[in-house]
Amino acid sequence: MNSIKAIVFDAYGTLFDVHSVIPKIESFFPGQGKKISEIWRRKQLEYTWQRSLMGRYRDFGKVTDDALAFTLKSLGLRADAEIRYVLVNEYLVLKPFPEAARTLHDLRRHKTLAILSNGTPFMLQGLVNHAGFRPFFSALISVDTIKIYKPYMGIYQLAPSILGVGREEILFVSANSWDAAGGKTFGFPTCWVNRFHGTFDELDVTPDLIVSSLDELITFLPQVDL
Amino acid sequence: MNSIKAIVFDAYGTLFDVHSVIPKIESFFPGQGKKISEIWRRKQLEYTWQRSLMGRYRDFGKVTDDALAFTLKSLGLRADAEIRYVLVNEYLVLKPFPEAARTLHDLRRHKTLAILSNGTPFMLQGLVNHAGFRPFFSALISVDTIKIYKPYMGIYQLAPSILGVGREEILFVSANSWDAAGGKTFGFPTCWVNRFHGTFDELDVTPDLIVSSLDELITFLPQVDL
Repeated sequence: MNSIKAIVFDAYGTLFDVHSVIPKIESFFPGQGKKISEIWRRKQLEYTWQRSLMGRYRDFGKVTDDALAFTLKSLGLRADAEIRYVLVNEYLVLKPFPEAARTLHDLRRHKTLAILSNGTPFMLQGLVNHAGFRPFFSALISVDTIKIYKPYMGIYQLAPSILGVGREEILFVSANSWDAAGGKTFGFPTCWVNRFHGTFDELDVTPDLIVSSLDELITFLPQVDL
Repeated sequence: MNSIKAIVFDAYGTLFDVHSVIPKIESFFPGQGKKISEIWRRKQLEYTWQRSLMGRYRDFGKVTDDALAFTLKSLGLRADAEIRYVLVNEYLVLKPFPEAARTLHDLRRHKTLAILSNGTPFMLQGLVNHAGFRPFFSALISVDTIKIYKPYMGIYQLAPSILGVGREEILFVSANSWDAAGGKTFGFPTCWVNRFHGTFDELDVTPDLIVSSLDELITFLPQVDL
């Protein structure tokens, strides 16, 4: 474990389960939580890409609320501000995946850890504090610094710039395959977390390492850490 | 019909039905045509946005093939090059929507018409020639000119630059609501073609005109054409 000095994690979908909002959605819209959560997440990402290309950045809290508004309207459901407020605030208390805490605890003894995320600083601090993860991380790096979303290359550059290490010394870990493709394109050694037997996106790059849960990082890290 | 000098159409989903590929898909994968076509189209668009942000443009033919490869793999289906070749070539012979021909024929008598599309010049020429639409258009404008995809603002700038008219003199017509939002953000008077009772994307802009099929343009154009 020599050449890798830092491990930088994506947040949403990688450390934290975006679909842990489902029970709260169900409290408003019984039987529709899974469907709503899936459309919501898809639209949230689409809006980050579309706004970035249009040069019309708005922060991830706003984009998350907009995506929820679209989702509820498109399903013919009530989309008033009160319901959206409650549901969007669930993004501040998303559940970490079960193995995240012990994995971060172990890795922290050997490497610098950080988060690189679309979330605002406010959202990331909320998430990480709620999970009790703040002590694990040297930095919570937000795209809000430069006001454009992943997978713009300048986002990935924030990690080496802020951590003060070379890109080749950072293992980038994401469960979002397009984000792993972005990190790999930038030049990070990259790990894709494939929790759900997914298919890696066809973007002409492949990750260096594929794990099915975060704790496999502890086993496999030496293989990419020559 | 004075201030609008030109009408610029999106191609895929607006003039031409991307889901007219379904019968050919069914010939390989019976019963799965609709599902495959929907995932294929969604991934195709995602890849245009992701590649644009990564600065890794590849043309729309390649992106369309990549998106199909992902789709088939993700469904556990055969994704060999022969099948993909046949299916991707269907994008050269997509069916126009039924009212497209007569609408273009009528509008052509009053306005300059053009296409502004993610497709390559080769793909657009194939489509338009196959449908017999070539005489209707003064220009087939492709993002391939500047090698980045919609909704990057520079794409929309191609239309006034190439047609030699002001952006406020161009009615932009798209059935893709994020694309209509892009055109409106750029400054075009914009018409959204909402064929399927859809919901307009929440991107902080609204179209000037909404029609449910292209022929309504003939009726409603005077309303935006002050």
